[in-house]
Amino acid sequence: MIKQYLLSPGPTPIPNEVQLAMAATMIHHRTPEFAKVFAEVREGLKELFGAKNDDVLILASSGTGAMEATVSNLFSPGDKVLVVNGGKFGERWLEISKAFGLTPIELKVEWGKAVKVEDVERSLKSHPDIQAVLIQASETSTTVWHPVRELARLTQNGPLLIVDGVTAVGVARVPLGEWGIDALVTGSQKALMLPPGLGFVSFGERAWARVEKAKLPRFYFDLRLERKSQQKGSGAFTPAVSLIFGLRAALRLMRQEGLDRVYARHERMARATRAAATAMGLKLLAPESPSPAATGVYMPEGVNADKLLDFLREKMQITLAEGQDRLKGKAIRIAHVGYMGAFDVLVAIGALEMALKKFGAPVKFGQGVAAAQEVLMEALE
Amino acid sequence: MIKQYLLSPGPTPIPNEVQLAMAATMIHHRTPEFAKVFAEVREGLKELFGAKNDDVLILASSGTGAMEATVSNLFSPGDKVLVVNGGKFGERWLEISKAFGLTPIELKVEWGKAVKVEDVERSLKSHPDIQAVLIQASETSTTVWHPVRELARLTQNGPLLIVDGVTAVGVARVPLGEWGIDALVTGSQKALMLPPGLGFVSFGERAWARVEKAKLPRFYFDLRLERKSQQKGSGAFTPAVSLIFGLRAALRLMRQEGLDRVYARHERMARATRAAATAMGLKLLAPESPSPAATGVYMPEGVNADKLLDFLREKMQITLAEGQDRLKGKAIRIAHVGYMGAFDVLVAIGALEMALKKFGAPVKFGQGVAAAQEVLMEALE
Repeated sequence: MIKQYLLSPGPTPIPNEVQLAMAATMIHHRTPEFAKVFAEVREGLKELFGAKNDDVLILASSGTGAMEATVSNLFSPGDKVLVVNGGKFGERWLEISKAFGLTPIELKVEWGKAVKVEDVERSLKSHPDIQAVLIQASETSTTVWHPVRELARLTQNGPLLIVDGVTAVGVARVPLGEWGIDALVTGSQKALMLPPGLGFVSFGERAWARVEKAKLPRFYFDLRLERKSQQKGSGAFTPAVSLIFGLRAALRLMRQEGLDRVYARHERMARATRAAATAMGLKLLAPESPSPAATGVYMPEGVNADKLLDFLREKMQITLAEGQDRLKGKAIRIAHVGYMGAFDVLVAIGALEMALKKFGAPVKFGQGVAAAQEVLMEALE
Repeated sequence: MIKQYLLSPGPTPIPNEVQLAMAATMIHHRTPEFAKVFAEVREGLKELFGAKNDDVLILASSGTGAMEATVSNLFSPGDKVLVVNGGKFGERWLEISKAFGLTPIELKVEWGKAVKVEDVERSLKSHPDIQAVLIQASETSTTVWHPVRELARLTQNGPLLIVDGVTAVGVARVPLGEWGIDALVTGSQKALMLPPGLGFVSFGERAWARVEKAKLPRFYFDLRLERKSQQKGSGAFTPAVSLIFGLRAALRLMRQEGLDRVYARHERMARATRAAATAMGLKLLAPESPSPAATGVYMPEGVNADKLLDFLREKMQITLAEGQDRLKGKAIRIAHVGYMGAFDVLVAIGALEMALKKFGAPVKFGQGVAAAQEVLMEALE
């Protein structure tokens, strides 16, 4: 087995068109030539974020940098925020809030479950001084989709709704403007089919109104500066030029496929993966509210998930993702996000069948694959 | 379905390592720097061809150019040669022989069958003035493997044995020196994992002894010139520099994997593909002496193979190969040659199952895939 298959929820595979775009001649970032590229990607991002009149700002950072930027630009020391914590990335909101001296109220959610809207509502009633709700749209660690659309309705006239959209934007529709999300964040290495290195933030009107009042210190991530500079055609600081070349190519690919078809492809791959896992007798990590970006699957009794993943990576060149923290050794995550298609699902499932057999689990070859094929046939209609 | 899968018997997929090598800065071809690269690839090719003390010459041409070079360097007008014709590439030997004014004796072989050694023996007895036997090791059009090893024994003290190794060299062991093949030819776009553009020829001692006596006209393909020049570190005419950079990378990859493992991988993929086709109830084109490079499969009654291939390519982005001439519309060919592995077989079979279902053929999803998985498990031992 000689070819590498990167089927993790980020980094994800890069299309050739994007690789070639990133290999273009380096140019200076304060030139009309760069401004033209920058204007095009800003337009594409606006559409992707459903940001209407709002900017999507591009940062030279990982997704975590973009998360931090929302906190440092929107709050003052001691501000009370509600953090929905149902996984590793919920925890990250908590860590950032603490690092910046906010007063986070933690709403713990069982791993594998989505937060209940009524639980958020109850927390907000108990703490009427909560300034914002911090949440993931897709909690990558537990492969759960949280009800951000419903939460946006709930917070419409109350606290801000700040959404980590890292495995959501470009995977499913999360229109900031239409739904009334106040801040939406993503990174480059997921649905955007780029290497890691870019973070994206978009604020709605209510959020921008808070930025001037926010007293937290910020310099590199000062979004007022970035907004002013990016409207003029470049970043306030040196932007990651080659990644932005790649971003232009990636957004063109997405437009060419059509955003609705991009979303449908992700939803179909996710459904096919769940159908395959179920047909193989494997238990899903998030059966009730699954993310369209990745599918968490418990391993059968007696199979150590981490050893299985090592085997898949070392002997089969297939990179899937591990279960984290309390799921360590118990579950794996199969990604279907970004530059992946029907046959990546078949490869993931086919390889999983073979690896599980090797680990002594009861497997009937082709059973999971067949269940996936049934779903993937819809793409041929 | 957004990703292209090139599963044809040439061109074949190119590894990233090779793509990157070909993107290196262009250099001049009469420099010590180039001579160093050239010396390394010559060593690697010698091993691959099992050429012992003989040179493998690199031509800027397709495989057909290399075939022509063997004819124009070894024969004189009117020379009688035996051409084994069991497919499109057998026919090509015939066409080249005719174009150069030889007197070819055609030994027709039923498509899908290998030539019988006794039939060659009989032809040689009927025409004791035959100067050479021209044949394919792997007849790509019918996915047949001809018994070149046995034929080399037969011709040891008689006519030359000239072997088109285009889908054979690098796929299976075809050692020129050890077996006593007199001329062996291949192209870059098959097992060598390169784009098209390079042809390769190696002559054994008996062949070189004939070159001076051969009276056919030649200039670009004058192998005496090439031999002299290439021993000194470059081609007689401008060599295809970037392809030779790529060749170095490809040969390094093959050495890293180990030639024996490369051959075992091809043999296993071929066996898995045949097992899958048989499990799907499909008839093999060459059940008795199949090539390890590609598998020909008849389509079920009522399925037009060419329309199915169009559907696979246009709707599923999967490129398999068509049946040629009398097989047109009736058969397809699934390649497993070069930079392909176990999961390319699963993709090919999974996609074929889905496409056949779409065309109304009786298909049970996962049946072919499961048969392939059983065989491919050997790679995990």
